[in-house]
Order: sequence, then C-alpha cells, then structure tokens
Amino acid sequence: MSVLVVGTVAFDAIETPFGKTDKIVGGAATYICLSSSFFTNKLNLVSVVGEDFPNDAIQILKDKSVDTEGLQIKKGEKTFFWSGKYHNDMNTRDTLDTQLNVLENFDPIVPEKFQESEFLMLGNLMPSVQKKVLDQMKKRPKLVVLDTMNFWMDLFMDDLKEALKEVDVLTINDEEARQLSGEYSLVKAAKVILAMGPKYLIIKKGEHGALLFNNKEVFFAPALPLEEVFDPTGAGDSFAGGFIGYLAKTNDISFENMKRAVINGSAMASFCVEKFGTQKLTEINQDDVDARINEFVNLVQFDITLK
Amino acid sequence: MSVLVVGTVAFDAIETPFGKTDKIVGGAATYICLSSSFFTNKLNLVSVVGEDFPNDAIQILKDKSVDTEGLQIKKGEKTFFWSGKYHNDMNTRDTLDTQLNVLENFDPIVPEKFQESEFLMLGNLMPSVQKKVLDQMKKRPKLVVLDTMNFWMDLFMDDLKEALKEVDVLTINDEEARQLSGEYSLVKAAKVILAMGPKYLIIKKGEHGALLFNNKEVFFAPALPLEEVFDPTGAGDSFAGGFIGYLAKTNDISFENMKRAVINGSAMASFCVEKFGTQKLTEINQDDVDARINEFVNLVQFDITLK
Repeated sequence: MSVLVVGTVAFDAIETPFGKTDKIVGGAATYICLSSSFFTNKLNLVSVVGEDFPNDAIQILKDKSVDTEGLQIKKGEKTFFWSGKYHNDMNTRDTLDTQLNVLENFDPIVPEKFQESEFLMLGNLMPSVQKKVLDQMKKRPKLVVLDTMNFWMDLFMDDLKEALKEVDVLTINDEEARQLSGEYSLVKAAKVILAMGPKYLIIKKGEHGALLFNNKEVFFAPALPLEEVFDPTGAGDSFAGGFIGYLAKTNDISFENMKRAVINGSAMASFCVEKFGTQKLTEINQDDVDARINEFVNLVQFDITLK
Repeated sequence: MSVLVVGTVAFDAIETPFGKTDKIVGGAATYICLSSSFFTNKLNLVSVVGEDFPNDAIQILKDKSVDTEGLQIKKGEKTFFWSGKYHNDMNTRDTLDTQLNVLENFDPIVPEKFQESEFLMLGNLMPSVQKKVLDQMKKRPKLVVLDTMNFWMDLFMDDLKEALKEVDVLTINDEEARQLSGEYSLVKAAKVILAMGPKYLIIKKGEHGALLFNNKEVFFAPALPLEEVFDPTGAGDSFAGGFIGYLAKTNDISFENMKRAVINGSAMASFCVEKFGTQKLTEINQDDVDARINEFVNLVQFDITLK
C-alpha cells in the first residue's frame, strides 16, 4: 500500500553530551520516509525546502524509493533550520534557534497521483497545513496518522482540535498528552483525547516506551535498553515511520496488528538514537531490522498462561 | 518453600496530592509479607518494633500466616517512624521526618527454626544488619534477594558492597543503580553492578516498569497504566514480596521463571499504589491477583513470530 508522508525536510544542528553537529539533514518527513522505506517502496513525499538544500540528500530519499514529486524547492529561499541542545538525561532539550524560512508560507500541494494514497502520515507541522493536505485527498485514506507537538498546542490549539476530528491515530508524547487533555494520569488523558476524534492514541514516552490506546484496550511497548543514546532527534518520527510503514506493508489496521506496528516503530526509533541525525537509518539493512525486532520479542516475552 | 523476610515494621505518615494520613502501619517487611502471603504461607519475619506498635497490626500479619517469632518487641521503646510528602508527579518525595527509635540499635536475631528458610528476602535496612541475618543462616538459602536504597549508599557504601558479594538478586531503583555504578546508562550500570556479586539485578523504575538483568539477558516488565496512583509508598516492597513469593511458590529460580516473578511482583505493586499504605493489599483476594496478572499479559503480549 502507498503511504503519503507530509512533514518537514530540514537542516538541524544538534548538541548532545556526546558531541555536536553542524547543519545536518533532518526534518520529520526525512526520518519518517527513511524509516518507512524498510516496509514499503510506495512512499510519496509532500514537503518544501529552499534552494540551499543539497541534491544528494534528496537523492538518498529517491534511492529509498521515495517519490519526491511533491517536494517543493523554493528558489531564492532557505530551508527550515532548527538547532537544539539536549541535557544530560537526553529527555529534555532546549531549542537554541528556529528559522522557519520556507515553512513560513508553506502551501502544501498534493500531486494528483498522490491523492489516492491509502495511508497518510501527517508529520509534525502547523495543524492548518496538515488539514490542507487531508482536504486534497481524492478519497479518504484507509488510515490517517497525525503527529504534533506542544508548540502547536500553545499557538493553534483550535486548529489542532479541528484536524483531530478527522484523524485515526494521534501520536504525541506524555507531556503533550497531559497538555492536550488537562489530565495528569495518562489513562485519563487517553480517554479525553479519544473523545476528540482519534480512534487510536499513541503516547510516546521516549526511553520509557510507548502506549497504544483505543477505547477498550491498552498496549505497551518498551524502548530497547541501550548502552548509549547518542542523539534522540528524530526518534519519534522514526517510530511513526516504522508504525505506518508496517501497517501499509501488512494492509491490516486491526488493533492486534497495530501492536506489531508499535513494536516495529519502536525498533526503528531504537536505531535512530544510536548515531547523530539520520546516519544510523541510512546504514542499517533488513537483517538488522529483523534482528532488532527479535530483541524486542525477547525483551518482553514471558509465558504466563491466561486463566 | 519458606521465605525469611527481614526489614522494617514501622509507622508512616504520608502526604500525597490526594490527601494525607496520620501514623499508619508501614515498613518494608510489612509490605513484603502482605504481598508474599498471596504466594506462600511459609513466611518467617525478623524485625523489631516498640511497645507502641498495635497488637492488631501484628495480628493481621499472623492472619496471613506470617510467623512473627522473630519480631522483637522492645519494652519502653518506640517504633521506627518515617514521614514523607510526595510531589505531584508521584515519582519524587521529600522526607519530612525520620525517627529511628528501635532501629538505632537493632540486633536481628534469626530464631533457630527460621535458619533453614529456603528463600531470604533482605528488605531495605542498614547493610550490616542485612549481613548479620545472612550470617545466621544454617545453610545458604536457595536464593537471597537484597533491597536497599540511596541512603545506605551515601552512608555505608563499603558495607553494602560487602553484603552484595553474597546475594543473588539486588533490587534498586534507576537512580540508585546510577549511584551504585557511576554509570548513567542503565545497561552499563547493570554490567558494573553484576560484577559486584549479584547474579541478577532488578532495576525498578516506578511508573515506568522494571528491568531484570543477568549477565546475558534483559527482561522488561511495564507498570500497569493506572487512572490514579494514590500513594507510591511500599510499591517497591510489594514488588519484592510478589517476586520472591512467586519464586518460593514455584521453587524455580531459572531466568524464565524470574520473568514471571517480575510480572507477579509488578502486579502486587500495582495494587499497593491504589490506596494509602497497606490498605489495598489487605482488601484484595486471589481472584483479584489473577485478574491483574491477566491485565499485564494483555498489556504486553503481541504475536510477532521470531525469525
């Protein structure tokens, strides 16, 4: 099944306790596409960059079978840039610089051949932009996943709530779930958020794993305990890419299969954080992914017979 | 199999965002015994209280088949008292008051009939006291589990390291694992700690679950997502009680069975936090425990076939 991915393609400059980078290629859609490419070769990208964005970074996506027809390249403009510094615990970070550049007036255009994509991944972007993409789909995708962040909740909560009415799966982190719902308990937060529209909610807890909720059930997937977390940037997007990629590959959106998708997403996130930026995602192969999935199975499996 | 439990029997005064208590019965050994009693009726207690400790609290333990012959009652002295206040996140707390009282000169005496107990749970206490108990065992127990805390690491690290050489399983929380090992990564911390003596290490992460390590493997058990965590006091001890109780009941200390024991411990901890103090542990029955175990199975089970 085809996956339409919308989100930023960007430059990041990252500082962690392990080192710092100059401008490197990043952006939600970049991570999502790289991660999804392990599961499907029908990836359609809608995004925007400036003319400063390197061709070989676009080529890397093309080599992963990403159709970049929907990637606008704005002459005379500059690519979105984000710079951040992670604290020692790697769970908190400070934004050092944000230059919206091409994002400031981004008007997403979904090429006609993308308009019947079966799966839609609305990566972290201004909610009104996410909504514009959804509105351009010729038929309602089989599954719409939306990722967002506290920044949009602070500025455009109404737009976000409007978009949420039309999505199937929302992915946010624990603090964002609390902000969106006004509830501290994640179980209570999930109930409130599921009443806003999404049929499924994924709460990402970083090194503490992820929770998948629907109205009746809850599933938990741990993060893999790693010796080193080098750079958490893109982990959530890699998770989302693995999640929707696995669902598209299997073409099965049952709760049981979503559990497997969450495990696959967690595996992709566990790779992402092992090196700076997108590096690790471009180094691994299918065998690495299979081996990592097995590690997750071993990490949580036990045999207590249900009574 | 019989379990010898050593630890505090105490008074606690607890304040959480949900309310506060006057002096209520608490203490590590109290929680451990109540929790273990769901798995074994051969529970032997070694501890100390003052003459202010209520008889009916001791009777509650006796009713759960706890042999209290090793519980010293010190005439003219007062029971250990701890008072603490939890912050909003329930993961951090301030100690408001600590009155050692009978603990100050506690000399644990293991009654002869306890000296061949097959399982030994050294609950959180001064390391030298834990060691004294171990030294009184006529034969080496099949399994020795030791729980400790940062307080003892600050004051008696050498004594603790001495005790660790003789234990099979160490249970500590994530911050304590970092303090004991000097490593931030829990995976690295586990390697360092396992080299200190214990064959198994359990790192308790509160609402984020628990990790079980040996030299080759790692297993993760989540905490049950709860609508409300009322009072975290005793959760770690309830976990330990369920863990060793299950191992004693099944008389199987393989890594596979320890995984099941960790799930059972997590289930007991999930009950503990639902009401103040020991209240919930005294209200539930075996059916409740079975149902809770099933919730854990449903929370983490998924069927990805290993390749």
